[in-house]
Amino acid sequence: MAPTRTLDWINDAVEMIDQTLLPQQEVVLRVADVPTMVDAIKRLAVRGAPALGVAGAYAVVLAGRQHDPTGDPTGFRAAIEQVRTARPTAVNLARMTDRVAALAGAGVGAMLAEAHRIRDEEIAASTTMGEVGADLVLELVGNRPVRAMTICNTGGLATVERGTALAVVHTLFERDLLAEAIPVETRPLLQGGRLTTWELQRLGAPHRLIVDSAGPFLLSRGAADVVLIGADRVAANGDTANKIGSFSLSLGARHAGVPFIVVAPESTVDLTTPDGNAIEIEDRGPVEVATFRDTPIAPEGTPGINPAFDVTPVAHIHSLVTDRRVVRFAEGDTLTSTAHLVT
Amino acid sequence: MAPTRTLDWINDAVEMIDQTLLPQQEVVLRVADVPTMVDAIKRLAVRGAPALGVAGAYAVVLAGRQHDPTGDPTGFRAAIEQVRTARPTAVNLARMTDRVAALAGAGVGAMLAEAHRIRDEEIAASTTMGEVGADLVLELVGNRPVRAMTICNTGGLATVERGTALAVVHTLFERDLLAEAIPVETRPLLQGGRLTTWELQRLGAPHRLIVDSAGPFLLSRGAADVVLIGADRVAANGDTANKIGSFSLSLGARHAGVPFIVVAPESTVDLTTPDGNAIEIEDRGPVEVATFRDTPIAPEGTPGINPAFDVTPVAHIHSLVTDRRVVRFAEGDTLTSTAHLVT
Repeated sequence: MAPTRTLDWINDAVEMIDQTLLPQQEVVLRVADVPTMVDAIKRLAVRGAPALGVAGAYAVVLAGRQHDPTGDPTGFRAAIEQVRTARPTAVNLARMTDRVAALAGAGVGAMLAEAHRIRDEEIAASTTMGEVGADLVLELVGNRPVRAMTICNTGGLATVERGTALAVVHTLFERDLLAEAIPVETRPLLQGGRLTTWELQRLGAPHRLIVDSAGPFLLSRGAADVVLIGADRVAANGDTANKIGSFSLSLGARHAGVPFIVVAPESTVDLTTPDGNAIEIEDRGPVEVATFRDTPIAPEGTPGINPAFDVTPVAHIHSLVTDRRVVRFAEGDTLTSTAHLVT
Repeated sequence: MAPTRTLDWINDAVEMIDQTLLPQQEVVLRVADVPTMVDAIKRLAVRGAPALGVAGAYAVVLAGRQHDPTGDPTGFRAAIEQVRTARPTAVNLARMTDRVAALAGAGVGAMLAEAHRIRDEEIAASTTMGEVGADLVLELVGNRPVRAMTICNTGGLATVERGTALAVVHTLFERDLLAEAIPVETRPLLQGGRLTTWELQRLGAPHRLIVDSAGPFLLSRGAADVVLIGADRVAANGDTANKIGSFSLSLGARHAGVPFIVVAPESTVDLTTPDGNAIEIEDRGPVEVATFRDTPIAPEGTPGINPAFDVTPVAHIHSLVTDRRVVRFAEGDTLTSTAHLVT
């Protein structure tokens, strides 16, 4: 099948699948200015740390077209700041935005070339993470068909193509060594139920969907051989911020003795954040919890707590697979060691 | 406020709130025959182990009216069997059905009197569990306002009045010692989001709703002082079958060092089941996972695993509070010791 290219630069604007409408509708959004991009990021039309990085990179190009960055920088800087802060937890967004903005003095053409480089690096990174992650899983599980539990959407829709954790599932499937993927639905926004199932169905890969809270129990009953998650931010000590529910699966994996593996590009590693306690957790407000799309599922006005992310302590994580290395925390590796480089 | 009497015998039939329609609509179902009752039980119009026991008791009366139990027993026995097996995990349903059916030889009047006794016993049991549970929580937490996390619906809607785990919350609120209740929404059927919030709102008790997978993480961040759950069946060793997600909260409570307390009537204790491995777990099929009411939330035809219950090992449970005793597993009590009798 053709790869899912979630977003791309086409005819002088960004085109992206509106992920809030999947799986019922496949609508392509055309984004030609910063406010539209900021809105798309905030309402999760584009999501996933690597995809947000690419979206941020192209948003800087759009900003440069609106506000000449070689002239008075005020408007350009304000636009960049809106992009950088559209989602607080995802480090890629701020980092890739900054990387392109650093070329502002060289003009819009140079910024566009840099944004394309970021896009192509992300595609190459996904391919590498899929291969290296599949090798690691097969080493840990034994060279036999694998049952892999996963959370949120970490597939092509979260990156540009193939994904992070789901790239490993994809590669196992291509090698004929995927017994089953078990995505958790991932409330409140149901990225697992809506997006990961959609990708797995398109791929033709065997899968069964479960509610989030069934994950730890099914692990305790031996339903999966490995848990694979993505990351929004990996702190210097290995603590990992990812979609709410990751911590819960990590407790389940630990209880069941199943390896818990984080798959994320090196750009997700943030050595300036010492540990999980330093990671800001977005609270997205009670409405997402009390409704599903337009259907109320709680009495009107029900208050809520809605942490978008949680932090899994490094003690629960077997390994981190990036596009550059495998860091086996469970075997004593640290992020500042250079062991197990991929290339 | 007036107590919530979820179901009762009124004018020669059972009347019950149709819980599948809450919180948007309050519809009272009138149930005058066994097939209607079996259907109501299967589609969860009535739910919660104690309420199911009372529903089963009255269903036997309905069966006795349809098939004279003092004559040819074939029709009566077939009807009873349909009631007993309408939900496999809830031991109260089979037990209370059997208790009333044992009086078949004495006629319908005797069976009705026994069913009323079961109803009144459940109401008294809820009051006791609320008081005793609140005493225990305040002892463990210290005599100060309590933040209590809870799952599913264990309030008046799950029993006849007041409830089990939520009766403790109710009693703490009456004593002015409830800081906050934190119900988890309880996918797939959202009993926490739909029903517990509805009861707490009616009561005027402070609460904030969360998605299931946020529970363990928020516990790790100190958001609650205690986790209170109900039970569908407590095995002889203390392993407890309850709504899917209970196991996950028990892992979170253990990790956070927060007491995890099961509140359930003595009728839920099943000494003939040695441990959790002997408890049959219903799989309710993939449709509940792939939809919310009539809204699809996954691609059409998505397969799933849908365990309705899980089993929390006794090692994760601080105490069991019943209407007759407190069994402090964490302090070495067992179900066959007679320590800590309530009266």
